[in-house]
Amino acid sequence: MKVHFESLTVATRGKGTYEVTPQVNAIVRESGVRTGSATVFLQHTSASLVIFENADRSARVDLETYFERLVPEGAEYFTHTSEGLDDSTSHIRTALTRSSEVIPVAGGHLQLGTWQGIYLFEHRQAPHRRRLAVSVIGE
Amino acid sequence: MKVHFESLTVATRGKGTYEVTPQVNAIVRESGVRTGSATVFLQHTSASLVIFENADRSARVDLETYFERLVPEGAEYFTHTSEGLDDSTSHIRTALTRSSEVIPVAGGHLQLGTWQGIYLFEHRQAPHRRRLAVSVIGE
Amino acid sequence: MKVHFESLTVATRGKGTYEVTPQVNAIVRESGVRTGSATVFLQHTSASLVIFENADRSARVDLETYFERLVPEGAEYFTHTSEGLDDSTSHIRTALTRSSEVIPVAGGHLQLGTWQGIYLFEHRQAPHRRRLAVSVIGE
Repeated sequence: MKVHFESLTVATRGKGTYEVTPQVNAIVRESGVRTGSATVFLQHTSASLVIFENADRSARVDLETYFERLVPEGAEYFTHTSEGLDDSTSHIRTALTRSSEVIPVAGGHLQLGTWQGIYLFEHRQAPHRRRLAVSVIGE
Repeated sequence: MKVHFESLTVATRGKGTYEVTPQVNAIVRESGVRTGSATVFLQHTSASLVIFENADRSARVDLETYFERLVPEGAEYFTHTSEGLDDSTSHIRTALTRSSEVIPVAGGHLQLGTWQGIYLFEHRQAPHRRRLAVSVIGE
Repeated sequence: MKVHFESLTVATRGKGTYEVTPQVNAIVRESGVRTGSATVFLQHTSASLVIFENADRSARVDLETYFERLVPEGAEYFTHTSEGLDDSTSHIRTALTRSSEVIPVAGGHLQLGTWQGIYLFEHRQAPHRRRLAVSVIGE
């Protein structure tokens, strides 16, 4: 049995989706795990993770537009406003998506479907450096 | 320590929720794992997983109706429309629910609560064959 | 390799968010796992888990207010109403958040970010005793 832990950092340029599949694939390769599972965990509360369609950029545009409407910035009932109009909104968008994604590993590879990519979903307007913790367990 | 990996396929008949708890239970049994955890991962971006009330069908009807309203088909601002009115909607509904569910195993059994079942949530109108990857790790 | 399983119970006083990070930290310590991952799983369908901002209570107030609006109690199209106006609403809010959170462990500690706490999100008006199953795997 093997256990591998590694951190990685992703620089975002403000709101949007940023693919991290290649970085996670590299960590799985380094782990030497052939069969098991990988946990990708984002150590922030104003950005999140989604596994999403990776073929056509327009699908991600629609996701981003949808979230702008579902959780609008600066709702009149928000009380947590000291860090800007996109603050509470960012936390709520994170709660509606995920802080972690867990993906089985077999044959030494993440068992993602053909059209699946792992995306960091940045909810803040300003660029941020986001840290991910990745653990891979198996044999 | 044991690591077990298995795929399974579920045929859907269009939109709705389809229980997969028995199939996942069978994989946990075959794995021989007594204590550990099971990861159920859906290899698609237009269907998702939820752990949901398994006693009364009406609860799932309300879930399905709610999602029809929360993410309506064919919103006027969708740009990803080449595969039909239910395409972007399906991806967004997936982002709002889950691609994987992770469930502890103890005494050789999934530690689901009394009223919890694992459901595949199909978001496309047409029938599909959906593949799940299941890994079980423990001793 | 080590596998550790433990249950814990949290008493809720009705709707709201209840931090469980200290209890999960204690289980990780007891497990003796230095590197691996912890799975926190809630065995109920009318309460859920979120990893959320732990510094300023106002962020959680906004989350709770937002969910009251996103999934209002007693929607006129709900059919699953025998257990009260907050019944279907609770299940749907659970589907929109999570039944489990998986967090990498390194150096013997949960790899949560500085501002992240693990919260039980109670969706029922009445107090409940909620059971969580926690498994920790690693070395």
